[in-house]
Amino acid sequence: MSTIRVTIWNEFRHEQHADHPASTLYPNGIHGAIADGLIPEGFAVGTATLDEPEHGLSSEVLANTDVLIWWGHMAHHEVSDVIVDRVQRRVHEGMGLIVLHSGHFSKIFRRLMGTTCDLKWREADDIERVWVVEPGHAIAAGLPEYFELPEEMYGERFDIPAPENLIFVSWFTGGEVFRSGACYTRGLGKVFYFRPGHESYPTYFDANVRRVIANAVRWAAPSHGPRPVFGNARPLEPRA
Amino acid sequence: MSTIRVTIWNEFRHEQHADHPASTLYPNGIHGAIADGLIPEGFAVGTATLDEPEHGLSSEVLANTDVLIWWGHMAHHEVSDVIVDRVQRRVHEGMGLIVLHSGHFSKIFRRLMGTTCDLKWREADDIERVWVVEPGHAIAAGLPEYFELPEEMYGERFDIPAPENLIFVSWFTGGEVFRSGACYTRGLGKVFYFRPGHESYPTYFDANVRRVIANAVRWAAPSHGPRPVFGNARPLEPRA
Amino acid sequence: MSTIRVTIWNEFRHEQHADHPASTLYPNGIHGAIADGLIPEGFAVGTATLDEPEHGLSSEVLANTDVLIWWGHMAHHEVSDVIVDRVQRRVHEGMGLIVLHSGHFSKIFRRLMGTTCDLKWREADDIERVWVVEPGHAIAAGLPEYFELPEEMYGERFDIPAPENLIFVSWFTGGEVFRSGACYTRGLGKVFYFRPGHESYPTYFDANVRRVIANAVRWAAPSHGPRPVFGNARPLEPRA
Amino acid sequence: MSTIRVTIWNEFRHEQHADHPASTLYPNGIHGAIADGLIPEGFAVGTATLDEPEHGLSSEVLANTDVLIWWGHMAHHEVSDVIVDRVQRRVHEGMGLIVLHSGHFSKIFRRLMGTTCDLKWREADDIERVWVVEPGHAIAAGLPEYFELPEEMYGERFDIPAPENLIFVSWFTGGEVFRSGACYTRGLGKVFYFRPGHESYPTYFDANVRRVIANAVRWAAPSHGPRPVFGNARPLEPRA
Repeated sequence: MSTIRVTIWNEFRHEQHADHPASTLYPNGIHGAIADGLIPEGFAVGTATLDEPEHGLSSEVLANTDVLIWWGHMAHHEVSDVIVDRVQRRVHEGMGLIVLHSGHFSKIFRRLMGTTCDLKWREADDIERVWVVEPGHAIAAGLPEYFELPEEMYGERFDIPAPENLIFVSWFTGGEVFRSGACYTRGLGKVFYFRPGHESYPTYFDANVRRVIANAVRWAAPSHGPRPVFGNARPLEPRA
Repeated sequence: MSTIRVTIWNEFRHEQHADHPASTLYPNGIHGAIADGLIPEGFAVGTATLDEPEHGLSSEVLANTDVLIWWGHMAHHEVSDVIVDRVQRRVHEGMGLIVLHSGHFSKIFRRLMGTTCDLKWREADDIERVWVVEPGHAIAAGLPEYFELPEEMYGERFDIPAPENLIFVSWFTGGEVFRSGACYTRGLGKVFYFRPGHESYPTYFDANVRRVIANAVRWAAPSHGPRPVFGNARPLEPRA
Repeated sequence: MSTIRVTIWNEFRHEQHADHPASTLYPNGIHGAIADGLIPEGFAVGTATLDEPEHGLSSEVLANTDVLIWWGHMAHHEVSDVIVDRVQRRVHEGMGLIVLHSGHFSKIFRRLMGTTCDLKWREADDIERVWVVEPGHAIAAGLPEYFELPEEMYGERFDIPAPENLIFVSWFTGGEVFRSGACYTRGLGKVFYFRPGHESYPTYFDANVRRVIANAVRWAAPSHGPRPVFGNARPLEPRA
Repeated sequence: MSTIRVTIWNEFRHEQHADHPASTLYPNGIHGAIADGLIPEGFAVGTATLDEPEHGLSSEVLANTDVLIWWGHMAHHEVSDVIVDRVQRRVHEGMGLIVLHSGHFSKIFRRLMGTTCDLKWREADDIERVWVVEPGHAIAAGLPEYFELPEEMYGERFDIPAPENLIFVSWFTGGEVFRSGACYTRGLGKVFYFRPGHESYPTYFDANVRRVIANAVRWAAPSHGPRPVFGNARPLEPRA
């Protein structure tokens, strides 16, 4: 199998405010921390951020991306619709997409889901306990049966279509549950939503979180099946 | 159970061209033929068409619609984005949506699916044989194990997310198959796509097709579950 | 729609031990409490228990049952394989089956699932908070977004096939989560597993629990689709 | 990734009757032809047949099998329940299982599905056209959008639980359709049913069929997630 090419897209705003905890936690940006977790896995890793030209997601970058990782929060509305169109088209063509945490409200995720993707939330130093409910799935490889994180709370109802595969369900100290690892297919592309990753916690340095993201990259990489033929079609004659 | 209120939306263009077969087949419009099939079932049936103000889909009409049926073909692009937003919001709130035939390319269906919804097609007097593959589902009530229609061909790959429930698979004389009855949930709303219904065939007078649409109306009607609460949430204290 | 005929099957052992809390909580048996919740809904309700001849599930009783409810715990192994075969066959023919709480380990549920149906458990006066994760589903009709019960804990990993529809996820004070409302189809029959109902708690008197069971009865009732034809088949000639 | 260890189980009866076409088509047995297709893929391939002691499936063989392939037809009833128990247990522990063609009626497949697994069939030199309906799935890698085989017909209704992923749908000249590639999870194990493979056709020498089986082996190989902990559990204390 050839090397999987990953592009990590990060809004990269919180980390640039000196008085925001993210600036200390993620001195190289959230994308930097995620990259540090993926490079040792043997992937070819690039990054892109909101304030670059075309948000760093030129047609060429996307054409050379097998799996795109997406972290955004405060500036979803600043992402250009043209770029969102482009990313969506690439997913349909087979590029994998991993949407992290507050990316649930990104334009691209809402487009691919067709729902509001709304949820409950609370910043109150909850403990999140992430339970593996589908331990036979590739994304659960090498994990313990649950792991814990100091995190922001996200709670149900999470307004998403029922996942094709539900891998994780989170328990929060404050009393909520959340479907925190959800798999979808859109066109030829695989999509994985993974809940943890509030910018005020060192979540992307956590070994289990890094394991999940690396597993998801492998799962979401294109499998190079047939490219569908659409449009007007002549009748088929069975082979003699 | 209170009466289910159905609104049948039809583009209503083909039928108004005197030289189009639809003008003879559907003198009261496709919406008229569908309405004739639903009224004897005890539903409260209204209709709306593209060229009415707000396409006949005012906020008030939608607020009083339990299930919306959608037929469109040549003028998808003329449907206002404002109205599509409104319909999508109502689906999220619980309104059922039944998308028929060439409605696969409607703005509302593509929005709810997140995919291109593209497919193969051929106008060549194929016979379609619609097989029931999930006979225990409510939408299959009262049907034979298969039924046949002279129809336009639609063939796989149909670029939709994997259906939550796949009820019908069609066989075509020309050699194709098609997932022709597909159920989804989006927000609180149920969505059903049903393949048959090319404007040049008397499909909406067929007894089995009418049975499917009536069953789908009952299945898609809102079930009045909890309205989700989204946003910032306080920790919950378990009941003492 | 004709009256739905429900048979409530109960092991009925705990309640007959004078020193077991169930004897006080359920003086008419768990089946009696469930029946009391269903009768006002307009169903035709019968009961059957382990120690009756054929466990109360004669071929005639089953032939006249639209939905069977199953509660068992300490005596799963005493249920005759002949009766389990009979129930399984009726599910395949379209009878609905609602499996409650410790029924997860019943022969019939394990047969229909094909897995061990094992789980974690703890009797320790946990509070269970049952969250509705699929509020648009018929089984969630009329419920609040969550409800609470003093209950025994069941925790993931719950070794079941991924549900076709996942309606509820439970949160427990002790730190666990559980997929507590799960829908399946087996043959023509619909199957619903619902977690709450330990014999030492008055769960089956709870208004929300009764609402869920009544909703599930309506959802699981046979929809009278086509009876499949199996076996050797001649080629079909398309309708001329 | 370490080498995937495959065991191909074959009933191996048809091929041993000199007057049966299988004896000519498959001089080394169906298992031999399947093995020939898998060995060049780099798997470690073993075989086992019905008439060996323990049907060739000793505890040791199964403990050293990552993916088991199953072909049976005329002698399903001769497979010992003890061995079926053993195979089912191994699937629950994570061993992949690929069930081929008439294996739909094998004890192990019916056990894992919980349904009758019945279907329509016809031996009449149909042409089967296998359409890829989920081209983004790993099992579709490297395939054309459809491929054809001279084959026995299998037709819907196929009495299986709705597949978790439906990869292929077959069209037959005689007028039927069939869900011919279906994915499931049971316990930690992945299960794939693949329709083609009647003993009177050279199906297992077909390049596309071999591609599917090799892809399915990779997909079904254990992913080594957490081994679930079942039974009585103490409350969890969140990490301080």
